[in-house]
Amino acid sequence: MKVIIVGGVAGGASCAARLRRLDEDAEILMVERGPYVSYANCGLPYYIGGVIEKKSNLLVATADTFRDMFNVDARIDCEVVGIDAAARTVQLKDGKSGALTTEHYDKLVLSPGAAPIRPPLPGIDLPGIFGVRTVPDASQIRDWIDERRGRASGMDTYSGFQALERQLRAVVVGGGFIGIETAENLVGLGFEVTLLQRGGQIMGPLDPEMARYLERHLDKHGVQVKLNAAASEFRQAEGGALEVLTATGDAYPADIVILGIGVKPETALAEMAGVEVGKLGGFRVDDQCRTSDPDIFAVGDAVEKVDCMTGEASLVALAGPANRQGRIVADVICGRDSRFRGTQGTAILGAFGGAVAWTGVNEKTLVRLGDDDFEKIYLYPNSHAGYYPGATLLAMKVIFRKSDGRLLGAQAVGREGVDKRIDALAMAIQLGGTVYDLEECELCYAPQFGMAKSPPNFAGMVGANLLRGDVGLVHWDSLGDGFLLDVRHPEELAVEQLPGVVNIPVDELRGRLDELPRDREILVICRSGQRAYYATRILMQNGFTARTVAGGMLSHEIFATL
Amino acid sequence: MKVIIVGGVAGGASCAARLRRLDEDAEILMVERGPYVSYANCGLPYYIGGVIEKKSNLLVATADTFRDMFNVDARIDCEVVGIDAAARTVQLKDGKSGALTTEHYDKLVLSPGAAPIRPPLPGIDLPGIFGVRTVPDASQIRDWIDERRGRASGMDTYSGFQALERQLRAVVVGGGFIGIETAENLVGLGFEVTLLQRGGQIMGPLDPEMARYLERHLDKHGVQVKLNAAASEFRQAEGGALEVLTATGDAYPADIVILGIGVKPETALAEMAGVEVGKLGGFRVDDQCRTSDPDIFAVGDAVEKVDCMTGEASLVALAGPANRQGRIVADVICGRDSRFRGTQGTAILGAFGGAVAWTGVNEKTLVRLGDDDFEKIYLYPNSHAGYYPGATLLAMKVIFRKSDGRLLGAQAVGREGVDKRIDALAMAIQLGGTVYDLEECELCYAPQFGMAKSPPNFAGMVGANLLRGDVGLVHWDSLGDGFLLDVRHPEELAVEQLPGVVNIPVDELRGRLDELPRDREILVICRSGQRAYYATRILMQNGFTARTVAGGMLSHEIFATL
Repeated sequence: MKVIIVGGVAGGASCAARLRRLDEDAEILMVERGPYVSYANCGLPYYIGGVIEKKSNLLVATADTFRDMFNVDARIDCEVVGIDAAARTVQLKDGKSGALTTEHYDKLVLSPGAAPIRPPLPGIDLPGIFGVRTVPDASQIRDWIDERRGRASGMDTYSGFQALERQLRAVVVGGGFIGIETAENLVGLGFEVTLLQRGGQIMGPLDPEMARYLERHLDKHGVQVKLNAAASEFRQAEGGALEVLTATGDAYPADIVILGIGVKPETALAEMAGVEVGKLGGFRVDDQCRTSDPDIFAVGDAVEKVDCMTGEASLVALAGPANRQGRIVADVICGRDSRFRGTQGTAILGAFGGAVAWTGVNEKTLVRLGDDDFEKIYLYPNSHAGYYPGATLLAMKVIFRKSDGRLLGAQAVGREGVDKRIDALAMAIQLGGTVYDLEECELCYAPQFGMAKSPPNFAGMVGANLLRGDVGLVHWDSLGDGFLLDVRHPEELAVEQLPGVVNIPVDELRGRLDELPRDREILVICRSGQRAYYATRILMQNGFTARTVAGGMLSHEIFATL
Repeated sequence: MKVIIVGGVAGGASCAARLRRLDEDAEILMVERGPYVSYANCGLPYYIGGVIEKKSNLLVATADTFRDMFNVDARIDCEVVGIDAAARTVQLKDGKSGALTTEHYDKLVLSPGAAPIRPPLPGIDLPGIFGVRTVPDASQIRDWIDERRGRASGMDTYSGFQALERQLRAVVVGGGFIGIETAENLVGLGFEVTLLQRGGQIMGPLDPEMARYLERHLDKHGVQVKLNAAASEFRQAEGGALEVLTATGDAYPADIVILGIGVKPETALAEMAGVEVGKLGGFRVDDQCRTSDPDIFAVGDAVEKVDCMTGEASLVALAGPANRQGRIVADVICGRDSRFRGTQGTAILGAFGGAVAWTGVNEKTLVRLGDDDFEKIYLYPNSHAGYYPGATLLAMKVIFRKSDGRLLGAQAVGREGVDKRIDALAMAIQLGGTVYDLEECELCYAPQFGMAKSPPNFAGMVGANLLRGDVGLVHWDSLGDGFLLDVRHPEELAVEQLPGVVNIPVDELRGRLDELPRDREILVICRSGQRAYYATRILMQNGFTARTVAGGMLSHEIFATL
């Protein structure tokens, strides 16, 4: 059996290695258009910033590794220029010699990835406008930056120790992973960074109010985030710099422009092979990653994946699912019945000492699908026990089924322990867990690491209280005309309070019930929602109609800016 | 309805607060023998070490909080001196006035906790020998230490800035949570610390080979761990110091002795109330925490809890389960059908920048129960992507059912991300997850936080490969007389190698198969087990009988010392 794998990174490389482990006799040819196989795409922004110092650090395995360890004929600088699916042949072009060869396959695995989107705007091809996809892309960016830093320091070359005579300016177009990670690294290199975002929020997989935390965090650390600022044109400016114009008529000077608008599946190979492409523009495959041609498989960022939560096709471009798909295709080629369960879209972004992570479905998607069988809660637990030094607040949103409590999705932002909480919730979602399960979960507790009631545990309690009818929640975006009762202490209101609220601290509430109306719904506010919940319980049991304002003033902060 | 809660920490305090939220009208009396309610026991070692600076930091809520926020009559310095279960009355003694009062209850909740074990050894009551249970215990220890540091600095009082003229010495008896955490804090205060452990390993919930990592880590950071060194006597030595003698005849001088031998349920209240105590010496309760008297409940460290994994009774003394029990009792008293699912024993210990954590059942327990339907694997993944700076190794042991792959338990040690991995696995265990589920799990990945194949994901792949028969494992403690093949590179063997191994690097193996015997089982070794797995696959498919030595040389290090 001969298997040809096109694309030697992530999914392709995983497939080759697994295939060899399962079948010592298969003939495996892995071709990669670029100069490197199995490199660490996710490290590229950090290589640009010098956090990852050497290019060699990015090379997880070389073509030689594949040859020696896995007996895989791995060819770099080797491009597929034709596929004859009927004859089951692939035409290959050697990048150096230009020589063409034809190779027969029994099974063909396509793992071409996705390319940074370059919108057809005026000036998009000017020098200094970069996408960040490959090691050569990152090297070019480093060279470009070094040259500009050399000039800005008044020297021909930049030593890294010279002060810059003027601050260099970067414009990052698009606030997704690549945009934000590269922005952070450019700030680290001394750039003044502006991030232009077409719509009303950055980082699309987040709900907009949760994205607010990230936008503020970036702003605080030197990335000027401009929302509703779609780049419309790029121009050459004086002194070799560029200028980025937006649809709103603003102009941003830039010594470098990074395109972080997103990626688009590479489907040239689908056309060559005559296999189907789905509505979203990625390869259409079944749950064994088989294309419309039974001998051709496709994996990774080029492929439409089923979203586990919605059942919809999605274009999630993440390393984990790509690797899993590569592994599954190897299994399938070797006659095993492995199947890809889809992706739940778990992901994390680190920036400036903080992180934002998510898993499962977001509210936007549920609303788009017309699905209203869900509840959402907002929590602000400490990252570890408040009595141990160094605790910081986490902001979490957890979404679950109203009908049965099943977890649907979670989003979290904070400085410490974001990954840990989303990992636990991701595992719970995968296994069909509910808020009732979270209520009883038993996670690691010592004061440096967490709390006796861990954030997932706490989320379970809040969610279960809600579903059992012990408390009703109201959200800031749908307050209506309820009577607003703030149960914080007056000192807290002195710092910030809403117009028109009545203030009765929770610990005075039982004695002051006669100050409250019995003919109106009372909406109870505190800082995070916890004391408001206590107060709501007091009110409900005393015959009042009351609900807790979810997430309290901490949530108001973000909703107020939507 | 009147509810009396005895014990105002963790379980008792959780019960009181929840009870009030569910029933605004209940009369709730919470009595606490000590001077504080709701304090942070788990913080006491860090208060001793000054990491938590102020005593007030330890006080999560005061009696006033309970009065004002929850309308709970919380009385401190108030001891139960008699219970008449037939009459449903409790006799209380005020610690200050000595006054006795009798209170009627409809429901009684007992949350007395567990006391440090003080074995009846000669000299056990000498001054300077401390248990660490309450805030006053910790204060006494701080005072004792300050006085000794004052003397050792040649001054009457110790300012914190004076150099010590001689190093103070501490002996910690027992290597459980309290022993190790206090040892760390005493090292931080400049003590020379010796930890005496009766048996062959510290931290009993770990399997002995995993405890080795912790023992080494402590040794490396200045805690001299003495195994099989049971304290047998305490003596007054010269200059106000103590001397701790061991059964093996050694003597250790000590300026302070900390007892960390473990805790014993406080069951005096069980005797007073005439309710049943189980075989392990804790309150026997049903899954609603009801004792043998239907109006008396018991929660927390004093209670025998069902171990979720084995179904056996256990004396797990952890904050999380205690709080959950308190909450459940409140539900039950209010007529709800809440049930305690038992404990899976998830816990974590931090020490000197590292951590060790576990969840579920350990191998020792399975062996004790005669359960051989399990497999175990050892893994040494990076804490985050190796190509991003700062990654460190994790050591993990994962145990699962041989018959169906269901996860049974996990233990992990390392510097970074131990809590995260055990949390994810704890959630998987709770929800009945298998190694096949882990194989497909989707956790957070960015290079600072993890790997595209996360450690739980990796554990799933290794476990599933094993159960599917793709590879057989052999463990260091049962090698037998197989032919040992080391597939590392010669440079690695130059550092350390086993006597009698044959060395063929994995990437030369295919060309050197004729050097290997076909009539013996080949046991394949590498550093962590990964390359050995590749090599085992090559050998199996070439007609050899071969297994991978689990955990490679990294596991050998620990097994060699057992």
